[in-house]
Amino acid sequence: MDTSVRRRQGRRRGEDDGSLAAPRSLRYRQLRNPLVRQPAFSDDRIEAIHEAALKVLEELGLRVLNAEARSIFAAGGAKVDEASRMVLIDRSLVKAALATAPGIFDMHGGAPGRTVRMGEDSVAFVCVGGPPNISDLDRGRRTGTLADTKNIIRLSQDFDVIHLLSPNVEPQDIPLNVRHLAMTEAQLTLGDKPLFIFSRGTPQVRDGLEMVRLARGLTQAQFEAAPYCYTVINTNSPRQLDIPMCQGIIDFARAGQVSVITPFTLAGAMAPVTIAGALTLQHAEALAGIVLAQMARPGAPVVYGSFTSNVDMKSGSPAFGTPEFVKGAFGAGQLARHVGLPWRGSGATASNAPDEQSVYEFMFSAWGSLLGGVNMMIHSAGWLEGGLTASMEKFILDIEMLQGFAEIFSPLDGSDAEIGMDALAEVDPGGHFFAAAHTMARYQDAFYTPLVSDWRNFGQWSEDGAKTAVQRANRIWKERLAAFTPPPMDIARRDALADFVARRTAEGGALPES
Amino acid sequence: MDTSVRRRQGRRRGEDDGSLAAPRSLRYRQLRNPLVRQPAFSDDRIEAIHEAALKVLEELGLRVLNAEARSIFAAGGAKVDEASRMVLIDRSLVKAALATAPGIFDMHGGAPGRTVRMGEDSVAFVCVGGPPNISDLDRGRRTGTLADTKNIIRLSQDFDVIHLLSPNVEPQDIPLNVRHLAMTEAQLTLGDKPLFIFSRGTPQVRDGLEMVRLARGLTQAQFEAAPYCYTVINTNSPRQLDIPMCQGIIDFARAGQVSVITPFTLAGAMAPVTIAGALTLQHAEALAGIVLAQMARPGAPVVYGSFTSNVDMKSGSPAFGTPEFVKGAFGAGQLARHVGLPWRGSGATASNAPDEQSVYEFMFSAWGSLLGGVNMMIHSAGWLEGGLTASMEKFILDIEMLQGFAEIFSPLDGSDAEIGMDALAEVDPGGHFFAAAHTMARYQDAFYTPLVSDWRNFGQWSEDGAKTAVQRANRIWKERLAAFTPPPMDIARRDALADFVARRTAEGGALPES
Repeated sequence: MDTSVRRRQGRRRGEDDGSLAAPRSLRYRQLRNPLVRQPAFSDDRIEAIHEAALKVLEELGLRVLNAEARSIFAAGGAKVDEASRMVLIDRSLVKAALATAPGIFDMHGGAPGRTVRMGEDSVAFVCVGGPPNISDLDRGRRTGTLADTKNIIRLSQDFDVIHLLSPNVEPQDIPLNVRHLAMTEAQLTLGDKPLFIFSRGTPQVRDGLEMVRLARGLTQAQFEAAPYCYTVINTNSPRQLDIPMCQGIIDFARAGQVSVITPFTLAGAMAPVTIAGALTLQHAEALAGIVLAQMARPGAPVVYGSFTSNVDMKSGSPAFGTPEFVKGAFGAGQLARHVGLPWRGSGATASNAPDEQSVYEFMFSAWGSLLGGVNMMIHSAGWLEGGLTASMEKFILDIEMLQGFAEIFSPLDGSDAEIGMDALAEVDPGGHFFAAAHTMARYQDAFYTPLVSDWRNFGQWSEDGAKTAVQRANRIWKERLAAFTPPPMDIARRDALADFVARRTAEGGALPES
Repeated sequence: MDTSVRRRQGRRRGEDDGSLAAPRSLRYRQLRNPLVRQPAFSDDRIEAIHEAALKVLEELGLRVLNAEARSIFAAGGAKVDEASRMVLIDRSLVKAALATAPGIFDMHGGAPGRTVRMGEDSVAFVCVGGPPNISDLDRGRRTGTLADTKNIIRLSQDFDVIHLLSPNVEPQDIPLNVRHLAMTEAQLTLGDKPLFIFSRGTPQVRDGLEMVRLARGLTQAQFEAAPYCYTVINTNSPRQLDIPMCQGIIDFARAGQVSVITPFTLAGAMAPVTIAGALTLQHAEALAGIVLAQMARPGAPVVYGSFTSNVDMKSGSPAFGTPEFVKGAFGAGQLARHVGLPWRGSGATASNAPDEQSVYEFMFSAWGSLLGGVNMMIHSAGWLEGGLTASMEKFILDIEMLQGFAEIFSPLDGSDAEIGMDALAEVDPGGHFFAAAHTMARYQDAFYTPLVSDWRNFGQWSEDGAKTAVQRANRIWKERLAAFTPPPMDIARRDALADFVARRTAEGGALPES
């Protein structure tokens, strides 16, 4: 029988069984990463880096710009010099903090299926965070607005492979004193996943945490008993903690919410030019933040953050997704495991366009992070230009790659049924397996169906306009936004949230601290 | 002191030391892969797949279309049915073949620095092989010519991260009877790396092997004592070996040259729809070819090849760089190690353009192969459109990624000198490391300098034409070709090669067998 005829029959038989309508189930909500972890250093050199970081904390110390943080450090037993604002932290204090910081915890959303585990082999992907600009193929690069922020929240809610929301682009059409209200309200009304609150000083953080409590319908005690939101604390590397960062660590710890303590240690710029040196500084600074959080509230959920990369030594420009970034990620994962904490890494690129460079740099950073054992991968979708722009098309391209990773994580059992000796015996030499019983029973769910990839032949692809992947991504984000429906929200909670925003707006909101 | 001022001083100090002219040494010639290997299956399921493959060979067998191959199988102890041309291979014959096939060997080029180790943790990257078409941004997609073949050989010779040559695009402007002469001559005169000879029947192979012998200045005995070239044997999955493939295995084994025995087992088409089933078929077919090679000449160098991927079950189109491809690569690496042979994998994509899809599919396939422990990664540069086109720009993009992998392979020692406690103490809180002594001593060689990546800021990049990575790659291949100089070649050898080609051309060359 002619191959194409038998194949068509096979396809028809499949189509006749009435079950084709069922889409492939995408179980991307709770991911566990089975990849064997890659080391950058031997265990004894990891211990040496840990020891060097302890020595940095004990002998060199950090400058802590916030008085309350210094008093917490002092009360907890650190040596504080008020004149220089320098804080020296003994290793016994680090040991005590690591004893109370939880190694694994759950973050809760607005629905049971949205719980995100943080730690061990769990992986959570987080969309782009923080850029001032937005870009897409139609309108180019421009300043971010609240409409853009909301669009990325919608996409982040829509794709199951994004686990945690963020305010993503900075909505610069909203005044600074109420911007935090708008960013938090957008996350709480357009999505039901755990969300992000910027640490821009206690007044804004207090508003943000209260909005989460109201939207989730919790008493203050319920809210403080489990994490629902997270913040990112970037130290001012080298060895400095500024006022809003200190306040963020303290406020989030006291509220039982998550601080992701992330030194931004660019090797050759704010950190030593070697990866081992940059990781030593990262480790010292992350541990200092973790000590402060545990002193503020023992048991406060924290994530060990890293963002070690390198700069272009010719220009000083930061670079991401480089070979050095990959090795830094392997080492950062080792250090996080060494202290028994969940680890935050990043998907990243310095590319100015959602082009081939943006993809290979992202892939290097993502593989580096995932092989390093990342638990929270921030900037996993839409980050461009070293964090200065969020790209709608890059968001979709990244989702394709994240879904690929999620599929790679799903185990094969290699059972006798999977091996399929009957199928091997059924098909003659030179034949094909399209119509084999083993194929017919499995073909609908056998493989990942891509979002962006076009596998048609060159002729079909050309006749359809020869669209590149980024052009196809442009169509996809528009279709997904057009079809988006926000998750249901209890009316009383929605009203309480709206009333709070209206009242705080009338009161003048709150400006960022600095 | 102002940061930018100190930084400029630091840069000037570096520029004044007189050593800036030395380019960073790229030691990409002999790569060793330190990544921890990823398994797709437990050890006992790998043993089960191996057992199932042995059962396929013993009970189902292969159809072998070449009479000489059947007689070698019969003489070696296999059960041969001449009427059906089916060959059943007992497990004892497989065991004997695996006992004589070398687990590691060197392939030699035309200069000592070109030796390529095959096996254990060594990695060799091979450029694109086999497409009928060539494409670039200037002229689009068109039929390959000898000029195109030569250009890709030049680039493959030029970049140290490509270790083995191939005839790459099929030069369709050269008649079939002399095309093999032209493809082999081009590899031998434009490059000095180990090269590829197509297995298109004994007459062409005999010419090709003789040309390698002449160009390398070897006696027949010297040539047969060590590998200088390789061929790829694709079985006609499922379970069939055609005439030129059988001849290739036999001819290369007898000449002591390398057969890369690669079943093309697309899950759901020519192989079972499951990865475990496709790998079982792959394993059986690869072992059959290895048995034939070892029966033809015990100790003949062979490589365990795999090209397991999946098809789009809606259209039957082959797909590459999919999640299933990655898991198939992990499993294939396990099976190659299980039988103790060097393993061949691939960099691959189904994309029709050198776009974002082509990059993420290539990256998935390359990471899958490298984490699987690949020793010979074919189609590592320039492969597009499922192997139907070679792309000049994709070649350059792939080189950038391969160089990234080579850099990731280079170990960090994490020594006290790398940790740099002095540098950490030297720089004040909130300062920077640009001018630190630790930085100044290392910055020139600290980081990989990219080939394609553009790390300038958006303004500088826009002013310079906002070129995407593929557009920059277009410029790079032209510059590299313009600057190319072929390696030196002994005049007597060059004349012997030219005389041979002239004589064989005058004799009418040789047509492919089928």
